[in-house]
Amino acid sequence: MHFTAEQRLDDGVLEREFTLGEIPGILWTPGPAPAPLILLGHPGGLRRMYPRLVARARHGVAAGFAAATIELPGSGDRPRSAAAEEARADLHRALAAGQPVDDEIVNRLVLPLVDQAVPEWRTALDALLALPEIRGPIGYAGGVIAIGVRLAVVEPRIAAALLFAGSYVPRAMFEEARQVTIPLQVLLQWDDEGNDRQLALDLFDAFGSREKTLHANMGGHTGVPEFEGDAGNRFFARHLR
Amino acid sequence: MHFTAEQRLDDGVLEREFTLGEIPGILWTPGPAPAPLILLGHPGGLRRMYPRLVARARHGVAAGFAAATIELPGSGDRPRSAAAEEARADLHRALAAGQPVDDEIVNRLVLPLVDQAVPEWRTALDALLALPEIRGPIGYAGGVIAIGVRLAVVEPRIAAALLFAGSYVPRAMFEEARQVTIPLQVLLQWDDEGNDRQLALDLFDAFGSREKTLHANMGGHTGVPEFEGDAGNRFFARHLR
Repeated sequence: MHFTAEQRLDDGVLEREFTLGEIPGILWTPGPAPAPLILLGHPGGLRRMYPRLVARARHGVAAGFAAATIELPGSGDRPRSAAAEEARADLHRALAAGQPVDDEIVNRLVLPLVDQAVPEWRTALDALLALPEIRGPIGYAGGVIAIGVRLAVVEPRIAAALLFAGSYVPRAMFEEARQVTIPLQVLLQWDDEGNDRQLALDLFDAFGSREKTLHANMGGHTGVPEFEGDAGNRFFARHLR
Repeated sequence: MHFTAEQRLDDGVLEREFTLGEIPGILWTPGPAPAPLILLGHPGGLRRMYPRLVARARHGVAAGFAAATIELPGSGDRPRSAAAEEARADLHRALAAGQPVDDEIVNRLVLPLVDQAVPEWRTALDALLALPEIRGPIGYAGGVIAIGVRLAVVEPRIAAALLFAGSYVPRAMFEEARQVTIPLQVLLQWDDEGNDRQLALDLFDAFGSREKTLHANMGGHTGVPEFEGDAGNRFFARHLR
C-alpha cells in the first residue's frame, strides 16, 4: 500500500489517496486514534463517484469511523475486460429495447466482477488494518450488493453490512445470501426505475441473518434521504464498537 | 377531561389517568413546559396493554415528547358492541379453522371501530391541547393502522405518523391511504404470523405521502427491536419540532 496524495478537508478529515499494486483507493480518517473502518462500496469509477463517496465518508468520519474504498476491476483507469464490456453492452441493448434483462446477462456481468473484486477488497483490508489509525471490526456499506453479500459470507472481519439494493443480483447468489449471518441493514429505493423491487424484497427475505432491517424510502436511485446517513451511523455504532 | 389518578414514575415522568366522558385514558408528560404530543395507538385493552404502553411512553418522554392514549370502543371496561363481538367471533372461527379471513369479516370488524374511535381521539386531542404542558403539532404512533390512516386523513393537527403494520386493514381503506400526505414511518414485522406481509407492502405502496419510510425487522408481532424506539423518536423529532 502506497500513499500517493494527502489533503486535510475543511472539516478536519484527513483524505489520503493510495495504490495497492495497480488498484487506486481512498482512505478517510478522523484522527490518529484507531477507528473502526467502514468500507464504502460503489458501482465503479472512483472519479465519477467521488462527490457521493466523500459525502458518505465525511458523514461516517463525523461519527468516529474511518472510511475507505478502492476502484473496481474494469472501472476508472483500470484495464477493461472484454467479457465484461460485452456483457455490459448486452445489458444496455436489452434495456434500450425495453426487454427484460436475462439472468444469463446478469450472471456474465456480475459473477466475474464479484469473483475478482472480493479478493481485492480483502487484500485492501489486510493493508488498511496494518495502519495504526484503523481497527476492526469492519463494516461494509454500499452498492454492488453482490460484492457485499460475498464479502459478508467469506470475510470474517466484516461484522455488519449496510447494503444498497439496486444493482443486479444473479439468482445464483441467493444461496450465498442464505449463508449471511451478520447484522444487515438493507436500503431500498421504492421507486427506483432501474431496480427490481420484488427481487430486492426476495433477497432481503433470503438473508440468513437474525438481525436484518429493511429501510425502504421514496425516490429514485440517487434519492436516498439524508436521514439514512444517520441511521447508517447508528447501525454501525451498534455493531462496530 | 377529568384527572382521576396521578403518580410520578421513578424516571421522573408524570403519569396521569383521566376520563373523557366515559372513556378512560392515560397521559405522560416530561414536565411543565409545553411538549409536542405523541398519541399512542394500540389494539384495545388499556390494562392489558399498559406494560408496553408505559415503556413506549417513557421512551418518548425521555426524548422530550408528551404521550397519551385512550381506551378503544368496546375494549377494557367500555361497553361491548354486539356487532363487533360477532365479527370478532367470526374472525377467530376463521383463524381456528385455518381459513383465509374474509374481507367481509374485516370490514365488519374494523370499519365501525374506525368510525367510532377516530372522533373520540379527536375529542381527546381537543382536551389534551388545552393543557399548558401540551403543544402541537401532534404525532400518532402505533397499531390499529386503520385508525392511524383515518386520523392522518381527517385530522390536520396530526403532522406525522409512525404506523405498525399488522392489524387487519379493510381493502376499502386503500383509497383513504392514497389521500395520506403527511410523513410516515411504517413498521413491519417481517415474520409476523398474524400479519399479511403482502398486504402491508401494498398498503405502504398506496400511501400518498412523499416522505414515507418502511422499516421491516425480523421477529413476530411483539418482537419490534428496541432500536426502533430511538428511530421513532428521531422521526418525530424531524417532524414535530
